[in-house]
Parts: sequence; C-alpha cells; structure tokens
Amino acid sequence: MYFHVQEFINEIAADEPDPAAANALQEGLGGQFGEMRTMMQYLFQSINFRGPDGKPYKDLIQGIGTEEISHVELIGTTIARLLDGSPRYQGKPADPVDKPGSGGAVPLNIALSEDNIHHYLVGAQGALPVDAVGNPWMGSYVYNSGNLVLDLLYNLMLESTGRLQKCRLYEMTDNKTARSTISYLIVRDQAHENAYAKALETLGVNWRTSLPIPKTNAESFPEVKRLLEMGLQSKIYSFDLTGQSQAGKIVQGMSPSGDGTHLDASEQTPAGAPMTIAPERPEEFSPGADADLRALIEATAAMEMADIDATFGRMK
Amino acid sequence: MYFHVQEFINEIAADEPDPAAANALQEGLGGQFGEMRTMMQYLFQSINFRGPDGKPYKDLIQGIGTEEISHVELIGTTIARLLDGSPRYQGKPADPVDKPGSGGAVPLNIALSEDNIHHYLVGAQGALPVDAVGNPWMGSYVYNSGNLVLDLLYNLMLESTGRLQKCRLYEMTDNKTARSTISYLIVRDQAHENAYAKALETLGVNWRTSLPIPKTNAESFPEVKRLLEMGLQSKIYSFDLTGQSQAGKIVQGMSPSGDGTHLDASEQTPAGAPMTIAPERPEEFSPGADADLRALIEATAAMEMADIDATFGRMK
Amino acid sequence: MYFHVQEFINEIAADEPDPAAANALQEGLGGQFGEMRTMMQYLFQSINFRGPDGKPYKDLIQGIGTEEISHVELIGTTIARLLDGSPRYQGKPADPVDKPGSGGAVPLNIALSEDNIHHYLVGAQGALPVDAVGNPWMGSYVYNSGNLVLDLLYNLMLESTGRLQKCRLYEMTDNKTARSTISYLIVRDQAHENAYAKALETLGVNWRTSLPIPKTNAESFPEVKRLLEMGLQSKIYSFDLTGQSQAGKIVQGMSPSGDGTHLDASEQTPAGAPMTIAPERPEEFSPGADADLRALIEATAAMEMADIDATFGRMK
Amino acid sequence: MYFHVQEFINEIAADEPDPAAANALQEGLGGQFGEMRTMMQYLFQSINFRGPDGKPYKDLIQGIGTEEISHVELIGTTIARLLDGSPRYQGKPADPVDKPGSGGAVPLNIALSEDNIHHYLVGAQGALPVDAVGNPWMGSYVYNSGNLVLDLLYNLMLESTGRLQKCRLYEMTDNKTARSTISYLIVRDQAHENAYAKALETLGVNWRTSLPIPKTNAESFPEVKRLLEMGLQSKIYSFDLTGQSQAGKIVQGMSPSGDGTHLDASEQTPAGAPMTIAPERPEEFSPGADADLRALIEATAAMEMADIDATFGRMK
Amino acid sequence: MYFHVQEFINEIAADEPDPAAANALQEGLGGQFGEMRTMMQYLFQSINFRGPDGKPYKDLIQGIGTEEISHVELIGTTIARLLDGSPRYQGKPADPVDKPGSGGAVPLNIALSEDNIHHYLVGAQGALPVDAVGNPWMGSYVYNSGNLVLDLLYNLMLESTGRLQKCRLYEMTDNKTARSTISYLIVRDQAHENAYAKALETLGVNWRTSLPIPKTNAESFPEVKRLLEMGLQSKIYSFDLTGQSQAGKIVQGMSPSGDGTHLDASEQTPAGAPMTIAPERPEEFSPGADADLRALIEATAAMEMADIDATFGRMK
Amino acid sequence: MYFHVQEFINEIAADEPDPAAANALQEGLGGQFGEMRTMMQYLFQSINFRGPDGKPYKDLIQGIGTEEISHVELIGTTIARLLDGSPRYQGKPADPVDKPGSGGAVPLNIALSEDNIHHYLVGAQGALPVDAVGNPWMGSYVYNSGNLVLDLLYNLMLESTGRLQKCRLYEMTDNKTARSTISYLIVRDQAHENAYAKALETLGVNWRTSLPIPKTNAESFPEVKRLLEMGLQSKIYSFDLTGQSQAGKIVQGMSPSGDGTHLDASEQTPAGAPMTIAPERPEEFSPGADADLRALIEATAAMEMADIDATFGRMK
Repeated sequence: MYFHVQEFINEIAADEPDPAAANALQEGLGGQFGEMRTMMQYLFQSINFRGPDGKPYKDLIQGIGTEEISHVELIGTTIARLLDGSPRYQGKPADPVDKPGSGGAVPLNIALSEDNIHHYLVGAQGALPVDAVGNPWMGSYVYNSGNLVLDLLYNLMLESTGRLQKCRLYEMTDNKTARSTISYLIVRDQAHENAYAKALETLGVNWRTSLPIPKTNAESFPEVKRLLEMGLQSKIYSFDLTGQSQAGKIVQGMSPSGDGTHLDASEQTPAGAPMTIAPERPEEFSPGADADLRALIEATAAMEMADIDATFGRMK
Repeated sequence: MYFHVQEFINEIAADEPDPAAANALQEGLGGQFGEMRTMMQYLFQSINFRGPDGKPYKDLIQGIGTEEISHVELIGTTIARLLDGSPRYQGKPADPVDKPGSGGAVPLNIALSEDNIHHYLVGAQGALPVDAVGNPWMGSYVYNSGNLVLDLLYNLMLESTGRLQKCRLYEMTDNKTARSTISYLIVRDQAHENAYAKALETLGVNWRTSLPIPKTNAESFPEVKRLLEMGLQSKIYSFDLTGQSQAGKIVQGMSPSGDGTHLDASEQTPAGAPMTIAPERPEEFSPGADADLRALIEATAAMEMADIDATFGRMK
Repeated sequence: MYFHVQEFINEIAADEPDPAAANALQEGLGGQFGEMRTMMQYLFQSINFRGPDGKPYKDLIQGIGTEEISHVELIGTTIARLLDGSPRYQGKPADPVDKPGSGGAVPLNIALSEDNIHHYLVGAQGALPVDAVGNPWMGSYVYNSGNLVLDLLYNLMLESTGRLQKCRLYEMTDNKTARSTISYLIVRDQAHENAYAKALETLGVNWRTSLPIPKTNAESFPEVKRLLEMGLQSKIYSFDLTGQSQAGKIVQGMSPSGDGTHLDASEQTPAGAPMTIAPERPEEFSPGADADLRALIEATAAMEMADIDATFGRMK
Repeated sequence: MYFHVQEFINEIAADEPDPAAANALQEGLGGQFGEMRTMMQYLFQSINFRGPDGKPYKDLIQGIGTEEISHVELIGTTIARLLDGSPRYQGKPADPVDKPGSGGAVPLNIALSEDNIHHYLVGAQGALPVDAVGNPWMGSYVYNSGNLVLDLLYNLMLESTGRLQKCRLYEMTDNKTARSTISYLIVRDQAHENAYAKALETLGVNWRTSLPIPKTNAESFPEVKRLLEMGLQSKIYSFDLTGQSQAGKIVQGMSPSGDGTHLDASEQTPAGAPMTIAPERPEEFSPGADADLRALIEATAAMEMADIDATFGRMK
Repeated sequence: MYFHVQEFINEIAADEPDPAAANALQEGLGGQFGEMRTMMQYLFQSINFRGPDGKPYKDLIQGIGTEEISHVELIGTTIARLLDGSPRYQGKPADPVDKPGSGGAVPLNIALSEDNIHHYLVGAQGALPVDAVGNPWMGSYVYNSGNLVLDLLYNLMLESTGRLQKCRLYEMTDNKTARSTISYLIVRDQAHENAYAKALETLGVNWRTSLPIPKTNAESFPEVKRLLEMGLQSKIYSFDLTGQSQAGKIVQGMSPSGDGTHLDASEQTPAGAPMTIAPERPEEFSPGADADLRALIEATAAMEMADIDATFGRMK
Repeated sequence: MYFHVQEFINEIAADEPDPAAANALQEGLGGQFGEMRTMMQYLFQSINFRGPDGKPYKDLIQGIGTEEISHVELIGTTIARLLDGSPRYQGKPADPVDKPGSGGAVPLNIALSEDNIHHYLVGAQGALPVDAVGNPWMGSYVYNSGNLVLDLLYNLMLESTGRLQKCRLYEMTDNKTARSTISYLIVRDQAHENAYAKALETLGVNWRTSLPIPKTNAESFPEVKRLLEMGLQSKIYSFDLTGQSQAGKIVQGMSPSGDGTHLDASEQTPAGAPMTIAPERPEEFSPGADADLRALIEATAAMEMADIDATFGRMK
C-alpha cells in the first residue's frame, strides 16, 4: 500500500521556459531507460519476488521502486515547468468563457516549430508519457525474469544507462530548471547503481575497478559535484513507513564505485521541497475550476436538487 | 513524494492456482482500462494540473491515483498467486545448483496449453505488464487534455469501463482468489466513479438517474454485496500522509449513484492486509537468494576483499 | 462525400454461433491484408491521387475503396453474428437494472477458453479492429507511394493476398455464416485483382498466364462456384451516386484471369440485403435503450426542464 | 452499404503551401482524437449495436460515422494541398521518362527541415495515416464497450476533445487553406457533441451549464463565427440514402450547448464543393498516367494481344 | 560483407510435427531475447563500434553477430519443420491448378485450435518474425549505448536471459526436432555468455562464483550434456573468412563459468549439416514452381518475345 | 550458415558530417522499405521456401538476402559517419576517466535541434534500427505468403519502392558520403528489381515497357550514371561460398528494364572496400577499451586470479 505527501523529492530551480530542454527530458521520463521504466520494473519485481530468504533484496528493490515514483513526479513537473508559458501568451479571460485566439490571433504558433507539437496540441504545456522522439512508453520495456541474479544485473545495467543518458542530457542544456533535476537524477542513479552492485557482490561478483559505469565521476559537472559532496550517491532511503525494510543488510560497507564512501541505508526519506500548482492557461482552454462560476452553480444546484429529489423520489 | 507500507490494500483469498483466471485478470492490470492505466493517468493529471483554485480537484485526483498504485500491487499479486505452482511441479534442489527437468522431464509442459506462455517462459509464474491478449501496456492510453471538465469526464468514463470489465470478469470465473480482488475493485471503481461524478456535479452536471454505469448495483454478486453493505462504494481515502488533501470539499453529500448513501472522505486509508513472499520455483530457475551459498560467499569475500583492497589501493 | 443505405452488400447466412470462426475472420477485417486495410489504402490513394489525365484510374480506386467500406460492414457484422449468443446464456432482466451473474454464476465462463477473450471482456460479443492474433490494426499498413504503377502493383498484390488468405479461411471452417461472407469476398477480391491487373495492362504489362493469383479458380469451393457462375468475379461497381466515374474506360475487355469472361463496369451497385439489429445481452451489461425507462425519463424530464430553464434563465 | 459522390463536404480555401500547418493537421486526421478515429469508432459501434428498441441511437451513430468518412476525405485533401508544391520545384518532364534531380540538383532539399520527412519520402506530398508526431493510427484507439450509455459518454468526450484540439490548431496557424477546414471541423465537432449530449439527456443526464466542452463558444474565431451564424453547430445530417434514419427522434429540442438554438435533423446532406485532381509531381516520380504513352501502348497491345490469344488459346 | 553456405550450423533431428512446440520456439526466434535480437544487436554494435584500440572487442561482437544469423536460420527452419504437415492433409494437385478444400472440405481446420493461427493463415506452415504470443519483433529491442562496458554487460545479460528461456523451453516439450535446436542454443548461449564475461574480466570485473547465469550447468538435460561433453560451451568461432579477427586476444584462459575448461577461439566454424527444401503444400496454395508449366511457358515465351521485341523495337 | 569478411560492399566517400542527411538515410536502413526489411524478408522467404523444383528461385532469394545484410552494414556505417563528430566537440580525456562537459559546458547542445535526438542521447552518434521519423523497425513488415508468385511480386514491388525512396533521398542532399551509398543502392535495387522481374517472366508475366519502376533510368543523377555505365544494374552476385547457387538459371537473357543489357549471374561477389574503426567520443562517454587501463588491469588480475583460484578451489 502506498501513501503520498505533497512535497517534491528535490527542489526544482527556477529559470526561463525552454521547450527544447523539456522535450529532451522526456527521455528521462518516458524513455526506455527513464523513470517510468525503473518505477514499473521495480514494482513488478517486488510483486513477483520469489524466496522468503531474500527479503533484504525484495526490500531493496521495493524501496528504490517507491523512490522512482517520486522521480516520475519530479521529472514530470520539471518538464511541465519548462513548457509552461513557453508561447509567451498573456491573455486572461474576463469571464467564465475564455477568449484565446481572439480576432484570429495565433498565440500557439510556437508549437509548429517545437520538437513535440503534442506538448501544446494534445497536452496543455505539460509532461507526456512518451520519450524524446514521441514514442509512447511500452510495457514490454519491463524486465522481470524471476531469476534474482539476472534481475539485479539488469537493474545495474538499467541504472547505469539511465545515468549515461542523463550525463548526455546535462551536456545538451544549461537551463537551470532542467539541470537541477538532471543533476539530482545523475547522483541518485549512481546511488541505485551502487546498491545493485553491492547486492551482486553479496551473490558472488567482485566489481574491482569497473564501476561506476559510465566511468566518470561526473565531478566536472558543477551541479553534480555539490550533490556528491553531500554524499547523496551513497545513500539508500527506505521510503518504508513502518520500518520493516531489511535493505540495510545489503546496503552497507565500502561503495562499489570506489570513491571511498560507505553505503548508508539508515534514512527513511530525504527532506522534501514545497509543491505548488501551475497557473491556468486560457490559450490551451485549460481553465481549471473557476471560483465565481462554481459559487453560482453551487447556489443554484442546491435549489434545483431539492426539486429533483422530490421529483425522482417516486421513481426508485 | 511517495511512501510504501508492507501491507496489501485488501486481503487476497486463498484458492487453487488457476492460470486461465490469471490471464483474464491481466486485463485489469495491464489492459487499456486496467489499474496501470488509471494509476498513470491520474499521476500525470496531478503533475500537470492547472489552476490554484482547483486544489480540491487536484487532491481528489492525486488521492485516487495513489490508491491505484496499491491496486496495481493488489491485482499483480493476485495474478502471481493464481499462476504460482500451476504446473504442479514439486522438485526441490538439494544444493545451490538447481536441477529441474532432470533426465529430460517436461515440468513446464502446461505452458504450451495456457493462454499466455509468457507467464512461464518470460516471467516466472508472475504478473506481466500486458493485457489479457498479451499486448503490452502503452503510454498512449494516458488521457490528460489539461481541460478539467474533459479530464473528469474521461475519468468517470474510465472508472465506469473498468467496473464494466470487472463485472464481466466476475462472470468468467468463480476462483476465490480471483474473485476476492475482482469484487473489491468493482466496489472501489464505483467509489471512484461516484467521486468523479460528484466533481462534475460541482461543475454543472446533474446526473439524475443515469448512474451508476453500467446500470447494475452488482448486488447480485455475493462477494460484492458484502462490500457494498460495508459502504466501500461511497468512501474516498486520501492516502495523504500530512493531512493536506482538500478532496473532502468535493466528496460529500448524497452519492450520485442514487443508492441513498452519503459520500465520505474522512478516512486516510483502509486497514491493510499482511504481505508474504512467494516460494522459490526451481523449474523456473528462480532460486532467490540461497541462504547457505550466501553465507559461504560472505565469508570468502571478507578474506578476498582484504587482499583486493591491498592490491588495488595502489591503482587509484 | 459519402452516403449510407441500411442494407448489407451481400446476405449473411444463418448458422450456429462459432467464436473460433469469428476470431479467424478477424484477420479478414483487421488484419494486415483485411478489409480495413484495403478500405483505408484506397481512400488515401484517392485523396492523394496525382494527374488529371489519370481520372479513370482514380475513379477505379475510389470505387473499389467505397466498396471496401461495405465489406468492413459485412465482415464486421458476420463476426458479430458468430459471437452473438455463443455463451448460450439466456438470462433476461425483469427491470431496468440487469441481473446477470446472479448468485455468483459464471455465464461468461466460455471466454476463458476462446481465442480472443476481448470479444467478451472488452467488446460485447462483437467485432474488434484487430487481426486474428489480437494485434490492433495499424496505419503503417497503408501503402500510397504516389507512383501510379507502384500503387497499382501493390493493390494487385494486396487483393491477391486477401484472396489467398480467404481461400485458407474457407478451408478452416464450414460454418455457413462464416462461409457465406468468406466466399463472397474470395470472388470480390478476384474482381478487384482483375481490375488492377487490367489497369496495369493499360500501362504496359501483359499478364499472359500468370493470373489469377493464387493460381486456383476456387471452383472446388461450392459456395464460391455459385458466385462465379453469376459472373461476380468480373463486375466492378462504381458506387458513384452521380455517374461521374470513368472507371469503365479501364475495366473492359477480356478478363486478365483468363476465364473467358469480359470485365463489366456498367452497374452502380449490387442488390443489397436487409439489415437487422442484434438483441440486448444482459450478461455483457449491454442493455441498449430500455423503452420503459426512457418513457419515464422523458416524462419526468419535461417537468424538470421547465423548472431548470426558469432557474438558469437568469444566469446567462 | 456505402456510396460516394465526387464532391467535398465543405470548400477548401486557396492559400500558399504550408508544410508545418499540414503536419499539425495530421493530428486531426490520424491522431488519437482525429477523424479516422471517430469514423472507425462509429462504424464499429454501428456494426455491433445491440437492442432493436435503440434504433434511433444506432441511426444517429451511423449517420455521424458516415459524415466522418467525408471528414477524412476533407482533412486528408487539405493536408495534401498544404504540402503540394511546397518544395517549389517546377521541373516538367518532356517525355515519359521523368527527369527530376537532373545534374545532381536537390529539388527535395526542403524535406530535411520539415516536420515529417515521410510527407516527401514515403508519400508524394500527400496525407498520411499518422498523427502530428508521426505515430501511425492504431485500431486500439476504437472504443466500443457495447454499453450504450458508456459508448455515448465516450463519444461526447471524443468529440469534445476533437474540438479542443482543433481550437488549439486554429491558434497555431492562420494559413487560409488550413483554417477553412479547421473552422468547419470545430463547428461540426460541436454539432456531434450536441447530438451525443442530447442522446444522453434522453437517458437521464441533465447537462445544465456544463456544455459546450471546452467552455468556449469559439465566436472569437472569425472563420468559426461565420459558420455558427449559419447554425451549422446544431444540424445533424443523416447521409442516409433511403430516408430510414430515426435519428431525428433524439436530435430535437433546445441545444444542450445553451446557445438558444434548436437541434435540427431534417436535412440529408450539406451542399458539396467541387473536387479536382492534383497535378503530377515529377520530383516525386509521381507521373500519373501519361496520355501519350498510354495511346501508344494501347495501339501496340491491340496487335500483340491478338497474337497472344492465338498462341495461348491452345494452352487452356 | 557477408557470405552464405548452403548448410545448417547444426543438425535438426527428425520427429513428428508439433505446432505447439513450434509456437513456443517462436520466442527463441522473434522474442525480445531471441536470435533475431542478438543478431541485430551485435550487427549494430559492430557497425557503430568506437575505438581502434578495441578491435578485439569489435571482432568478438562481430563474430558472435555473424553466428546469430545462422541461429536465425537454424531456429526458423526448426519451427518450419515442426509446423510442416501438421494439418495432416495429403491432397496432391493433378495439374497446375491446385485443388485443396475440394467439395467444401476443411483441411486447415486445425488452425482454429493452434496457438498462432498466422502460422497457417498468413504464413504457409512456416516461421514468422514474432514471439510466442504473436507480438512482432521490434527495433526498439536493440541496445547499443556506445559505452563498451555497458554494451558488454547488456550482452552478458542478454545471452543469460536467452539461455534461461531456452532452459524453460526444454522443460516444455520433448519433441526431438525442437529439443535438438533448443539444446544446441542452450550451449551456444553459454559460450557467448562466457565470451562476454571474459571480455568484462579484461575490463576489471571478477565474476568469481556468480557464473553461469542461470546457476545451472544444465547437465541434467541429456541432449545438453552430450554437447557439453564436446566442449561446445567454451568455443568461440570467428566466422571470419580472411582470418583478421582478433577475438582470440580476449577469448582465452579459464572459462568464467568455473567448469574447469579453457576458452578456445581457434576455430573458424563448426561442421555444417545438410540443407534440404520443404515440399509443396497445396492446401496453403504454396505450389512453388511447377516444372511442367514452366517448360510450357518457356517454350511459348520464346516465340512471343521475338514478336514483342520486333513490335516494341520502334518505341524506344 | 553465414560468414563475414572485414570489407564493405562498396566504398563510402568522405565528406563533412551531416546529421540531417544521416536521419534521412535512416529510412533506407530501418524504414518499412529499407535494407533491414529486405534482408529479413528474404531470409524468411529462404527459410520457409517450398518446392524442391524451385531451387533456382530459392537460391536467387537467398543470394539477394545475403547481399542485403551487407547493405545494412553499408548504410548503417554511412549513417554513423554522417553523425560522427557532428557536434564538433574536440575534448580528449587525459586519463581513464573521461571529462566531457567540464565546468558545465554543453558540448552536445546540437542534439536539441537535430531531427532525431536519439542519435546523441540513446546511441553515441551512430545508426539506429529506426526509420526517418524515429519509428522502430517492426517484424510485421516482413511479407512471406508462401505462394511463390505472390512473394516474387511483392519483392519486385519492394525493390521498386526502395529504389523510388532512394531516388527521392538523392534529391534531398548532395553530401558526398550520403550520395555514394544512396547511388549504389539505387543501382543495386534496380538489379534486384530486374532479377525478380525476370523470375516472374519465367512464371508467365511479360513486362513489356512497364519497367523499370519508377520509370526513370536515373541517368540524370551523375553518381548513378557512373555505376550504370559499369553495368551494376544487371549483375546478380551469389555470395554463395561453395558455388551451389542455381540462380543463374533464372537470371539470364535481356534485362526486363529494357536498357539493352543482359542479366549476368556469373560473379560471386563485388570487390570490397576497406573497413576502419571509428574514433572514441568522450562527450558520449564512449571510451572504447583504453589501452593503458587494460594493461594495468591485466597485470593486476593475473596476480589476483591466482589468489582467487586458490581460495575458491575448495568451494566447488
């Protein structure tokens, strides 16, 4: 059973809208090696896990899987913020009926030259469950062979590929909104890479000098360096409400990345960042719930309902 | 940010394995109108929500979306239990190297005549992210137009279709394991249908006698009847850890289903049911983490690591 | 612009329900070489046609494309009839609220052992836009290169493959409902094969002894033989309301199939067969529009609407 | 059974080629909420319709479904016109063998910078059965649950989403060719929205102030305003050749959109607009049927056929 | 550049047709972890390989990739043999026009109850590029990150998963035709697993006791045991015509599987097995090239061509 | 069984990087009518071929299929060369740990404005198994009906469409790297078109003046003209190592293209062109196998392995 708290797992820095960066980040959300995939893969591996002796492994996968849901929330919101307001259209409706495009204007003209027109045409300047070339996410991405060593090996490869792609994304844009999330995920992917590598160590592999993959410590990326100095690449949170996780039996000792840190599974969760709600966008016909109209409807409905209840009471 | 507790949202009844029922339930997990879809659709609608005035609507969608993750966990586990042990193969390995199929036996022969051979060949008698004819789940299922009324209308239609399909599933099997989850989801789909219908009432629609859809109270299904008597079709849980949800501003008053109950959003969560871990399955080469082997490796590794650390210390 | 008449293009023979035959026929509806594909391919080729000198070719493609819509209607209805009532469940609701599965019965149990469970679970014993293994129809099937010779050559190959598959379908089932439509389509596919072959003759090809493809006259199939004796393999209908089609400039002279007949494009349309509406299916929660309930609603609504109009008149 | 007339359902205004607008319009043709989808969804709902009492509902769906085929024809042709000639290549072949790219020129160079290179590479400056990001149309889009209320509710949502997307498209381009079709479809989508909303009224829903969705009357769009003044948003055509449609039993009375008009189902069809054939495009190797070559082939073939008939006569 | 020799890479044992086994084997051909995938993945990794210093790694991947084409040929033919003749229809046409289904018989009736009807309806009792539930093979399966360690790690996981699935396939059927190929591929997958593991050893990993994956030596499978005794799990062939492969620089020393053997890259190719051509199948309208008809056509054509050449000579 | 030689089937000319041309060429690699498709279609047709009398036809298809693997290699490498270095980033790592993006630079910024961001984000400036709009290659493209005439007719259409698309590609770019491969494939597609047309002649068709399709001799393309003058459009290579191919029984006599040449099947293979390995790309984290690091690892591992062997010897 899952719970939610109205906070982001990391803060999203403010910067200008940037639809090209938004589209690139879609790979990290809905791509084959993005957060929707890690999330779903680990949830399925948790659900189908075999072997009561392996509870620490299941708890490790379950905990990372829970974190990935928060990553979906984080990167999805980051994409939405990079898109929000990108057409720079400032119209504001004066009454419950919105008036974008008035007089034949083309406030969404930008959509024709951006990477994914669906960001403006199908969604309303928000994130989509697709990758950076517009392919929808597919269930066939999920790998869950039921063989523990294979599943862990795949997970290690998956986190390493995620980290590789995010390092490439970092090199594609310097938008601060995009980079705050990219950098955070580079470091958390490495934490997960470390955790799965350590789990494989307990099952017989010695990684020696081969980790991390890719073989960069990413310290040349300033935003990443700050997070590495805080040791986020070596922490595994449980996200477990009642303290039953045994992941700490695996996640301990020297980091397999060979950076001299020790792995630490003692914290339940990082400190969250505040959550806000995006503004309405009349040019997208996304008015939300208009306060005035609702008040009127509620008042009217009260009267009317009384009538209807009287009328329909006889029907039942 | 999300959290997990090691409990199921509802109890799964015990019964014989039943791979045909398992496959039918895949529609409720990975089908176009299954739990993966509601989960993802509501998470995206929460992430992309527009309009600070509409916080109660966002909180409603977020809360139901969080519940759907638990439904994925519930129905996924139900499918896994219906599959687990269905080949009735009882071999047990005597040492770390498993020995299924010894002497050329065909312990998985059943797979050739079951509905989805992937349940045995790709997975290890566990749930898959596919529908009941084997099509993988797709991101293009997710609907999030950004227009609140349209999104709510779609959600109402989605929950009603989910309930319709689960009523049909009920009529396909009387396996108790399958039915305990089907019945629970019929009632919770109706609760969500009620919640979205009520939200549309606040925006101007009067459903009068048209709900529920399908127009059956499902009381002719004994397992469902028991849950209806407990009023589960009229409760909306927040699954919100810090009590910030305003969904209760919408979810109140008479149920739009016309069953005479009042909608109730006062509870955070239902009582959970205990979670266990499935046994190993040697015929699937799904050994989990063997306790003896691990002990040996751990002992050996401790010695060896000391050597390696000494050796590689000079390399860095 | 298109029009409809409430008649089938050919009569569908009566026989027992046969869900296995229904599923096989899905290939002829939603398969890569089925009627949805020919329909869409020819509509796109008509829309995108180039070259005013080529009007007879465009009219030929447009006319066959229009016929294919009627073929979709014909084979879709044939599938629906083969499925309808196949679970042999005879419940009948006594009031507006249907009562299938009463007391925990499993009236749809048959669905677990049929080829495509979606026929009962997603649809309501009706046709689906998928092929015989459940893959959804895809737009990428459509071929429209814009090169007239290539498009005609593809169309010839497409009709020949359609005819090949329908000959194989004929050999899979002797259900009369299925065979009446299969046989009709074998003959019409050959008519279209002849038309495209003749069009290629006018552009330089001499087919000599190579047609028809497959190289069978199908006269060993009794139901087909009857239609061949009526000459249906050599007629091209225009389905053109105002008589502007010039397809007859191409479709004339000896049949390229070498059966001694002459091609004939003089008729607008075949005689149609009567259309009826399928019964309600309470076990599918497919009640249609209940007459009694509608009467009640209409009466009540009249009163209520008067009230509401009065109430809301002030709002606008 | 279906018929065709060589007229468009609405006139397509002339303007410059505009491949970016063409690509955006692909969403309205092959997108998840485009005309191919409404067309196919309503054809399947008509084919599988249940309940003889519901004939007016079936006739309504069938009639709108028939109109949608004409919409596919209209928007497909609009896309083709926006693409046609966009590379501004004016070569003209002097003989049956075309000569584009002569001397190594790059007349199709524009294709590398346009949104969908397939418009020039796979098609020949014509419409494709894909959406605006190039995803092919899929049969899994079609919704047909077999439950009348659900199907109507989905149809209402579908038309509303279609109208929402077309309003967004209007705001993306002011090309007159594109806008003439966009505006027409905005108004017709609203007509269909009204029809399905009215059908749901007869089954118990009272829409009060919630329609239209999106909550804009679109009168701020000049091209749309003109059509609204003609009342096109309130007319439902039957497209039924023999006058058997009972859709008028439903489509009558005040419009659910609350614009003060009455719904009108009395007309069979709108006045059509003339249809022309696009020019040849040698740079696409789309020569159509060359008149001179055909004359030569026909003359030669007559002689030759006589010989062949003589030769092969003995073989049969 | 590639070459072919008309021999199979291993002998296919004779046994009865077995369409259920054929369908299961489709996973090994067109599944996500089947031979088409390994083949394509390694070809792409070879094409895109970076780093002249890494030639031994490229040569290793290229050599295994070439072997996988022969595996596609082997398993495809195995499937075709398991299907061929499975309907037990013995008709034989007496003349160039085939006569299956004569008198309305249903010689392909078996297709309705087999796992993949396409084996009889779309193909002609032959292999298809799909997996065991009918999903077509997809290019998105191919993994080629461009990072050598990640690519090798993925390849190791891929071969191990292939071996896992083939071990499960072994347990599903004892048909000798199926098992001869399954067993061969179990052993060759292990050889490839060993090769990639050894390549990773040279880049820093020490596998210690963790290999092979799955942790079975498969010696309990008699057909596999025979091949292991021949040492096939430790041989890497180059399939390189001109002896330029440097794969042997990597593939040497103790096997990482810990079975005490040494890896051996000294052989170019295994001894091949003879190739034959399958019989015609009239019930599938798969007549091949009829010898008598061809003789007649050739004779006739000679005469006619002379006429045509004379006639058309003037046209050019 | 297949073999490889480390040569390209044709030389790839040097020119500047050109990612737009690279993306266009993807259609020729992974598109519906590209080289992956011809390769797979002919391999499947060879595997499933029926009829011992038809060996010349099988050998023809097998030989062309083998050539297509080399075409995949050729066009894939051409794409990789057009992408390689396109970001013009010249960083070079000084030690085994690469340092791209140092100090927050954006060396991959170009990726945001190119046609397929996956070329930089998922791959490492290399070819992908997708078409020019990013759709992954699909197994459902493969056509193999089992009817020889139909398969040959489809193959003829397939080669003609491939040639049509490559002629269009020629007109899109004058990059020399791109054109050297495009021109070669235009001519080889015509050779294959000729071969299949000739095979259909032996089965009864007379193509007269209808070939080639498209009806251009492409001599207006200078790079193509050079190859035509060498007669490459009329040669069919066997790629058969042991000289067993009987394709020459079909491929002989006048070319069906009517260009006055004779078809020639006497050569086994064209002269190959040298193969080189692409450089490392640190900004993609594609370091290949670093020579220094490997030397160190190898030295260290030798020592360590001895220890480990000693330690683990007791475990087995």
